[in-house]
Amino acid sequence: MGIFKFMTPEIIFGTNALSQIGESLLRLGAKKVFVVSDKGVLNSGWVELAVRYLKDCKLDYCLWTELTSNPKDYEVEKGVRTYVESGCNSVVGIGGGSAIDAAKSVALLATNSGTIQQYEGVDLVTRPLPPMVMVPTTAGSGSEVSQFSIIRNSKHKVKMTIISKSLIPDIAIIDPQTLMTKDARLTAHTGMDVLSHAIESYISLAATPMTEGYSLQAIRLVANYLRPSVASQHNREAKEAMAMASLQAGIAFSNSILGAVHAMSHQLGGLLDLPHGEVNSILLPYVLEYNLISCPEKFKNISEAFGENVEGLSLTAAARKAIGAVKELAGDLGISDSLSGLNLKEEQIDFMSHNAVHDACMTTNPRDMKVSDVKMLFRHALGSDI
Amino acid sequence: MGIFKFMTPEIIFGTNALSQIGESLLRLGAKKVFVVSDKGVLNSGWVELAVRYLKDCKLDYCLWTELTSNPKDYEVEKGVRTYVESGCNSVVGIGGGSAIDAAKSVALLATNSGTIQQYEGVDLVTRPLPPMVMVPTTAGSGSEVSQFSIIRNSKHKVKMTIISKSLIPDIAIIDPQTLMTKDARLTAHTGMDVLSHAIESYISLAATPMTEGYSLQAIRLVANYLRPSVASQHNREAKEAMAMASLQAGIAFSNSILGAVHAMSHQLGGLLDLPHGEVNSILLPYVLEYNLISCPEKFKNISEAFGENVEGLSLTAAARKAIGAVKELAGDLGISDSLSGLNLKEEQIDFMSHNAVHDACMTTNPRDMKVSDVKMLFRHALGSDI
Repeated sequence: MGIFKFMTPEIIFGTNALSQIGESLLRLGAKKVFVVSDKGVLNSGWVELAVRYLKDCKLDYCLWTELTSNPKDYEVEKGVRTYVESGCNSVVGIGGGSAIDAAKSVALLATNSGTIQQYEGVDLVTRPLPPMVMVPTTAGSGSEVSQFSIIRNSKHKVKMTIISKSLIPDIAIIDPQTLMTKDARLTAHTGMDVLSHAIESYISLAATPMTEGYSLQAIRLVANYLRPSVASQHNREAKEAMAMASLQAGIAFSNSILGAVHAMSHQLGGLLDLPHGEVNSILLPYVLEYNLISCPEKFKNISEAFGENVEGLSLTAAARKAIGAVKELAGDLGISDSLSGLNLKEEQIDFMSHNAVHDACMTTNPRDMKVSDVKMLFRHALGSDI
Repeated sequence: MGIFKFMTPEIIFGTNALSQIGESLLRLGAKKVFVVSDKGVLNSGWVELAVRYLKDCKLDYCLWTELTSNPKDYEVEKGVRTYVESGCNSVVGIGGGSAIDAAKSVALLATNSGTIQQYEGVDLVTRPLPPMVMVPTTAGSGSEVSQFSIIRNSKHKVKMTIISKSLIPDIAIIDPQTLMTKDARLTAHTGMDVLSHAIESYISLAATPMTEGYSLQAIRLVANYLRPSVASQHNREAKEAMAMASLQAGIAFSNSILGAVHAMSHQLGGLLDLPHGEVNSILLPYVLEYNLISCPEKFKNISEAFGENVEGLSLTAAARKAIGAVKELAGDLGISDSLSGLNLKEEQIDFMSHNAVHDACMTTNPRDMKVSDVKMLFRHALGSDI
């Protein structure tokens, strides 16, 4: 084994954990807090509650919600200007991956000069960021514990992957109650995103004994609790389990990176602004079919984490059950098995495939991929090869 | 589930990880490094190597090795004076639990005033510590990742447990090669200490889904690799596995605390200066017998982590197999099953039992313990009740 690194933020987890947001910021030296969220989350009431906790701690704040899903470079730039003008010295993100990724990139530019484009890639951040506390309200992106921020380059229509240890927040506050305001569709999509994090981090070339246990546990939790979590907004046990799954998958992929599902879905998000969770969910079984030969033992473990009976099966047959389990779950949640309904045209596949092989997430995919392999998978998923 | 917190340092793990010590300290702003170690480790050559890496990075340093096992309050106080006089601004500990615990307590007093006695207990540290990088050379104490420092109060002859998030080092560098200079006896004792961390953290009342996986994985690794690691100084695979076991058990117990084994062994270390790992190893099966009724399901999982076949057994019988597996392992390593050879007198049991129930580790033991229960267990382990 070569040398590897492992890093997580401080984590506060549990019902009413949100109540610790003010105290957490005070500990980090915050005076005025830049609160990043989006309009959907604003309507859910969690931002209002968080702000009340900030006020209880005599913290000043500036609320900024001028972002969209798949947050854009120009939105981040506007956010930084507002951060500076408002005299904030700390950043909070409350919401899904979009709000938290935007919050992290605002924090990045607040202390590092230039444009967000300059930081695309690995380890290009040189100056420490302001204190950051992140509160996820979807389970979820894992961004609250990760060293990633994904921002859409609006000119080139690609998603930029920014990876730096500096992007790991100081404190992640995970309150499962916040999941109770998500509708069923978003719960399904973000839950399948968790599954894609868990599986891709587990079969990643950079997986380690520090991440593999979290990946498998996240798969087990998704297998057992995503269906009931989609079924009811009020199932407390399922929300808690999915919050834990998201956290563990997030820690795993932050430290072992991801794979081809994300390298490809970043292109669909970049070019067509499509919803990340849904696209990941559709791509996952296609990419798993392709990756199967790279590590059948790990696929077998995934089958077992899904509760599949693999007794007496050959290794390949046991491994293949993992793909069946993923498809069955997506089917039960009413998620399409094809990209065909998503406004994607076949002539766009070329552009996306060329970009996908250069995505930072592709470097850890367990099976080598050339542009032609990505094209083939995009075509399979679009149904255009049938 | 209530609210829980989870925290680890940044971790760098792998063969030759030690080579990253200079760069790690530079990142933390170190200029002159206070290097804490003991004479045994000094002889192994690892300190010399570490110092060479510091010099490569143009870091100045002061080497301090005036400590003994079960490090004493007066040693820490002398250490702090040397730290201040030498103009250091950062701390490194290289060695087993004694060196690292001493290094952490020196760092504590370097920025917090008063004596080390004032900080006994939970969360009494108020000011940030200087940057700390820890390099364990035993697998091990787990101190390189934990929020604990255990210092012997020489006047009262008790071990003081200091618990604070501030005691979590900034960076833990774990290089399995450092285990190759440990003799068989120390390897056995420190390895059984890892097992006691793994089991006590797993059955702790404060265990969480973030720690349980690490605890069980550490048990599996100890079950499979401690014997071969004791058998040979040169078994690279076994050393790597034991380094990982120590790390995972360390993260688990730092976040979920321990139990009666440690509450009791702290007394033997405090009163009689006995070796921590050996004492834990002897006490472990006695305490497990007592704790069995508190969580038989978890005991059953421990049995399975040991590779025991529990098929068809009643829950209690399956649970009990865990205790048999612990005893068998200790026996194979030539560790005594009794305290009787260790200079302990029956009349000392009273004093130790009264102190044990107030030890910070006792609060998370899964079965309630009165002074009379502790006495009974000490007597069992001493063989004085037969």
